[in-house]
Amino acid sequence: MKSKVPESITIAAEEKQATEFLGKIWGKTPTFVCTIGNTETAKIPGLSAAGANPAATDFTPAADVELLFYGKCKCIPGVPITPDGIPTPGIITMSAVGLTKMPVFAVNGGVRVRPIAPYFELDGAGGEDIRTGAAVKDPLKVYESAVVAGENLAKKAEYLVVGESIPGGTTTALAVLLAQGYDAEGKVSSTFPANPHSQKTKVAREGLGKTKFKADEMKRDPMAAVAAVGDPMMPAAAGLIVGAARTIPVMLAGGTQMAAVLSIVKGMEPAVLKNVALGTTRWILNDKTSDLKSLVKQIGSVPVMGANLDFSRSKYDGLKIYETGLVKEGVGAGGSSIAAIAQSEGRIDAAGLLAEIEHNYERLMAHKK
Amino acid sequence: MKSKVPESITIAAEEKQATEFLGKIWGKTPTFVCTIGNTETAKIPGLSAAGANPAATDFTPAADVELLFYGKCKCIPGVPITPDGIPTPGIITMSAVGLTKMPVFAVNGGVRVRPIAPYFELDGAGGEDIRTGAAVKDPLKVYESAVVAGENLAKKAEYLVVGESIPGGTTTALAVLLAQGYDAEGKVSSTFPANPHSQKTKVAREGLGKTKFKADEMKRDPMAAVAAVGDPMMPAAAGLIVGAARTIPVMLAGGTQMAAVLSIVKGMEPAVLKNVALGTTRWILNDKTSDLKSLVKQIGSVPVMGANLDFSRSKYDGLKIYETGLVKEGVGAGGSSIAAIAQSEGRIDAAGLLAEIEHNYERLMAHKK
Repeated sequence: MKSKVPESITIAAEEKQATEFLGKIWGKTPTFVCTIGNTETAKIPGLSAAGANPAATDFTPAADVELLFYGKCKCIPGVPITPDGIPTPGIITMSAVGLTKMPVFAVNGGVRVRPIAPYFELDGAGGEDIRTGAAVKDPLKVYESAVVAGENLAKKAEYLVVGESIPGGTTTALAVLLAQGYDAEGKVSSTFPANPHSQKTKVAREGLGKTKFKADEMKRDPMAAVAAVGDPMMPAAAGLIVGAARTIPVMLAGGTQMAAVLSIVKGMEPAVLKNVALGTTRWILNDKTSDLKSLVKQIGSVPVMGANLDFSRSKYDGLKIYETGLVKEGVGAGGSSIAAIAQSEGRIDAAGLLAEIEHNYERLMAHKK
Repeated sequence: MKSKVPESITIAAEEKQATEFLGKIWGKTPTFVCTIGNTETAKIPGLSAAGANPAATDFTPAADVELLFYGKCKCIPGVPITPDGIPTPGIITMSAVGLTKMPVFAVNGGVRVRPIAPYFELDGAGGEDIRTGAAVKDPLKVYESAVVAGENLAKKAEYLVVGESIPGGTTTALAVLLAQGYDAEGKVSSTFPANPHSQKTKVAREGLGKTKFKADEMKRDPMAAVAAVGDPMMPAAAGLIVGAARTIPVMLAGGTQMAAVLSIVKGMEPAVLKNVALGTTRWILNDKTSDLKSLVKQIGSVPVMGANLDFSRSKYDGLKIYETGLVKEGVGAGGSSIAAIAQSEGRIDAAGLLAEIEHNYERLMAHKK
């Protein structure tokens, strides 16, 4: 980066480190990794907007991955939508991927529906409802394989962007942050404009009360916290990040779910924190119902930045509605947008991204009918 | 490559193209991909030496992958050995990988035992005994996902080396070559010094007689040939090669099994043949009981080269015995050795490779006891 941070990116925390991070990735093409999982937590009514109906949430991660690889979904018709008909933020990510030609890989932490596409298998299982207090089976096995995959991807990648797709993930994020002793109540975001904080807290507390793991153990060992009340995306993403960030910069692409992943990364291998940043959307940074900055600050001095995506002038109501606080982030939408801006050295800006997103939206919506 | 081909590499076919190919990979670090699968064909007594007993063959591909990632196997004690106690050629590959620090990925075409390691899943199934004439389920699905993985790996790799581990694979290679109309009888190699050609031919012919696919169809469509009498490694390897070779050079690392993969590549997308070469071992090139050169020549003008591995002066009988014609090749041993020689611009030679192989052999054999 030659001069100042472009207008299309907002630095929200750790300005100096953030500018340094942007300098390292400026003009570079990253490798994008989408980590996926399912948790039965997503099916608790009222918690998540990731699926038009609870059973449909099982298909969302697989469909998002297919969107990234093929520009269309294979396992479902159309694209994943919220109950209100808002399309997946994966449309943003696929647009950034299309503009940059970055390589894409999917990593399966534990899904119930597999993508019709190649993906890294780590032999994780789908996650249970966190109210059981036994949410994820053997997260350490998944984490360790993910570390190996991250190390090997890092040998050829200039930097890694790690996104996620897992419906219900902000509730598991809250629970895992609480389990590790962070002040997270009321701070995770939501796909809904009205964030159902009290319900999320109730669900998280129920799991924490039920689990066989001792409070001390979950504070000390992130894998215990995940096993108790986490989701299967978490050990996959954390392992990849740790494996890669030992040698190359890694951008955690997401909102408060990625703050939970960051807390796991810190618990497993704090030395790599110096090599990571968190990239999200303007909608998350501006969200009054959550507090990403507070969460990250509690974990460590990690840069937080956002892509200034602005859909207020979109021709399409389905996109314009993002400005009302629906959806906000997911599938690494914000981080991949930052990567596209950085690769083009600022020539791609928020308006250029919107044009590409509208183009894809148009095609996908026409295709659907 | 500045001057002539180093002594540690023998060009066996298409000298001009081979020299050009070596020039392209000279000084470069490839990405190594090990494609794995299982076929029940391996359990026909007398056909394969890949496992100490038929049931153990299920573990060989997983154990080979673990060897590459961790320098030791996890799913079995020790390393895969033949009934005579000869260690897997994966020891050669892990030595080449260790010397070059090349990134390693595993790709699962369809195994019965999964590695305790990350791997690309393509949702293929383990292969049946080819005598059924219905050996591989839906190879096109596996092939298509593999193409996508190959395309994405190619975006950051300088070149790809694709090896395989699948016990029983030379018999399925014979059958698939015959199905496609090649003159392959008596030409595939064996892990045994006495190549059981007549038994292999009998097994292949039995499958070809039994299958529901018409002879014409199998000649025209490699996926029909694979579905009838192939193995699950084949569509995975062929797809990866096609996806990557559209943009970067690809070395098929193996003996006559890779000739069968090459025939599939040709049938699916002949344009990529100009971007591939076949790399194997001196033991395959010198093998009087098989004819790799004849097979490749029938397919196309593709360079064939071999690493001049020579274990005759090894301190260890378990390695020295390779000189008697046991094992010969596997897990991309020859191709990865060529890659190590090329990366070092010839500074690593056959003697340097043997030193590293002996070092690993020593450690693994000590560990075993």
